[in-house]
Amino acid sequence: MNYKIAVVPGDGIGPEVIDQALRVLDRIGEKYNHNFEYTKVLAGGAAIDATGGCLPQETIDICKASDAVLLGAVGGWKWDTLPGDERPERALLGLRKELGLFANLRPAILFDELSEACPLKPEITAGGLDIVVVRELTGGIYFGEKGFKDTDLGPAAYDVEQYAEEEVRRIAIVAFDMAMKRNKKVTSVDKANVLESSRLWRRVVAEVAKDYPEVELNNLYVDNTAMQMILNPKQFDVIVTSNIFGDILSDEASQITGSIGMLPSASLAQGNFGMYEPVHGSAPDIAGQNKANPMATILSAAMMLRYTFGLSNEADAIEAAVKKVLADGYRTPDLMANGGKEMGTKEAGDLILAAL
Amino acid sequence: MNYKIAVVPGDGIGPEVIDQALRVLDRIGEKYNHNFEYTKVLAGGAAIDATGGCLPQETIDICKASDAVLLGAVGGWKWDTLPGDERPERALLGLRKELGLFANLRPAILFDELSEACPLKPEITAGGLDIVVVRELTGGIYFGEKGFKDTDLGPAAYDVEQYAEEEVRRIAIVAFDMAMKRNKKVTSVDKANVLESSRLWRRVVAEVAKDYPEVELNNLYVDNTAMQMILNPKQFDVIVTSNIFGDILSDEASQITGSIGMLPSASLAQGNFGMYEPVHGSAPDIAGQNKANPMATILSAAMMLRYTFGLSNEADAIEAAVKKVLADGYRTPDLMANGGKEMGTKEAGDLILAAL
Ligand SMILES: CC(C)[C@H](C(=O)O)[C@@H](O)C(=O)O
Ligand SMILES: CC(C)[C@H](C(=O)O)[C@@H](O)C(=O)O
Repeated sequence: MNYKIAVVPGDGIGPEVIDQALRVLDRIGEKYNHNFEYTKVLAGGAAIDATGGCLPQETIDICKASDAVLLGAVGGWKWDTLPGDERPERALLGLRKELGLFANLRPAILFDELSEACPLKPEITAGGLDIVVVRELTGGIYFGEKGFKDTDLGPAAYDVEQYAEEEVRRIAIVAFDMAMKRNKKVTSVDKANVLESSRLWRRVVAEVAKDYPEVELNNLYVDNTAMQMILNPKQFDVIVTSNIFGDILSDEASQITGSIGMLPSASLAQGNFGMYEPVHGSAPDIAGQNKANPMATILSAAMMLRYTFGLSNEADAIEAAVKKVLADGYRTPDLMANGGKEMGTKEAGDLILAAL
Repeated sequence: MNYKIAVVPGDGIGPEVIDQALRVLDRIGEKYNHNFEYTKVLAGGAAIDATGGCLPQETIDICKASDAVLLGAVGGWKWDTLPGDERPERALLGLRKELGLFANLRPAILFDELSEACPLKPEITAGGLDIVVVRELTGGIYFGEKGFKDTDLGPAAYDVEQYAEEEVRRIAIVAFDMAMKRNKKVTSVDKANVLESSRLWRRVVAEVAKDYPEVELNNLYVDNTAMQMILNPKQFDVIVTSNIFGDILSDEASQITGSIGMLPSASLAQGNFGMYEPVHGSAPDIAGQNKANPMATILSAAMMLRYTFGLSNEADAIEAAVKKVLADGYRTPDLMANGGKEMGTKEAGDLILAAL
């Protein structure tokens, strides 16, 4: 089979971690007889430097003509003086909207081998953590109307948080489908005691839940969830929430694992199309120094194989190879706090290839 | 001096913890020759049961005619089947708006004596934590226009996040004034890479900062802040943020202390008027069993003495008495995870009175 992948190396450590992910994909291709065809495209700071804008039309077109997108990271100090709406990160918002990527899956997993890196006390996380935050990604306050107006209190700026029933329904379905393949527990997070859009959210999620009688549904307020994530994170299986609450909670969840350099993510459209990227950012401070941890990007490639291409065995093989390298005691610099055999970005790729 | 205090015992454990706080205030009154005059008023579930509405006009009037308000907690299962906008918690929103309580101060302190209760590993919190979240409390998406509309995607609900420059300015001034009395560091939290209201927020905070050249100002995105709170909470001194972000982050911050039963809060209006309440909720599961920890409410009374009445020595005395009881090894049930001499709600009051 031939699989067309649009590749966005992006900025900072993006190109380095992408290189290693492509090496891993190539090896999988050889071993399992698939052909992965890459088209590299520009987005973020790299696109600003080359074209003046962070998301060229050509990039959008090539992504749309591909089966999936693999992205490294975008952004960096260099572009920090640009006005907010011209920054490299805007490319992410543009890609999400243009490609219809409404469902963002962010697993927060505590790897056994890295449990020492967890900032929470061991009694809280004993037995491991395996949460997936399902974040709505193309609606809410991110894409609602925004602007300025005059008020009784003088000049003001505003942003509209808004959800249509349909938007809530489709993300809820993603969450419940996912729960059926996992521990059959969905926590829907909102602020229904204050927000009208949250009350609609809660009502539609309850409707969807009726089609999944085996799945346990809990509703939690966002403030309480931010607490429970620290107090008792093991209660969570699948968390489903709005764009802005998901932004905050998925970052909090990733942090309680202590290993953000290990965490992949998927942003899915209706159908099988998806964009895959590590949770971490572009880390300009260590760019070009062979210090970046490529494992989150390699695991993102594994998610791509699983979710977009339906290649579960191949995805399993990559995940097993990553775990083997960790179990053998190798660590990239970000994971060295508790010692280990240090490896660079490229060596991590070498070791994972060897383990495949 | 005569001080008029409107007292809202509220629901669940509210009345019990309030009782102990009033005993402590009475002792302070005797010792330092002040007269605290209490008027008990209804709000929350207790008001719903008695009057049908969660916030009677009489309550508002009496609060307005007082020098300060001391509140226990509102809410409980009993009223959970009511529609969202008739719930007991709505009384809090009503009081905040009616009384103009725009500045919510939520200290998150790791008490030396309770450091074992902290869910974070000791190396992260070594040396203690002392953060205060300054949350804007009468604006933003809590009080913006909300409703329903038809969209391209069908029926939708919306809520408007909105900030006027003036609203941002007055809360920023509270934060910078507070920082001047503390470690001279303000972290302003927003989502300026996405929200127009956040860009206005960031601009106005920068303007206010010019009047405080000694204070260091950092701007952080809300998602990053949710991470930094776990990764490196010691970097924070004063955090200033919007109503909804403050709701989430202050709860997260309270949780990293591990002792939410100890945390007071103040909600201040222009001038000296304020409402004081514990951060914890009404805990209906332990109501009426002499199990509740009254220390957060007692410390809220101390904040009232300090901020509204300007009685710092008296506030110091209460805080010292609470610490003494902890140092002597006494613990309410919520703090017993690491052992100690168990005390009930009333015994906690007795011991604090004795320590005064
Ligand atoms: C860069 C920013 C616009 C983005 C977001 O808020 O969605 C990022 O924080 C993320 O979570 O992917
Ligand atoms: C009860 C609720 C409306 C309230 C809020 O969101 O402000 C509470 O969570 C709080 O933080 O005081």
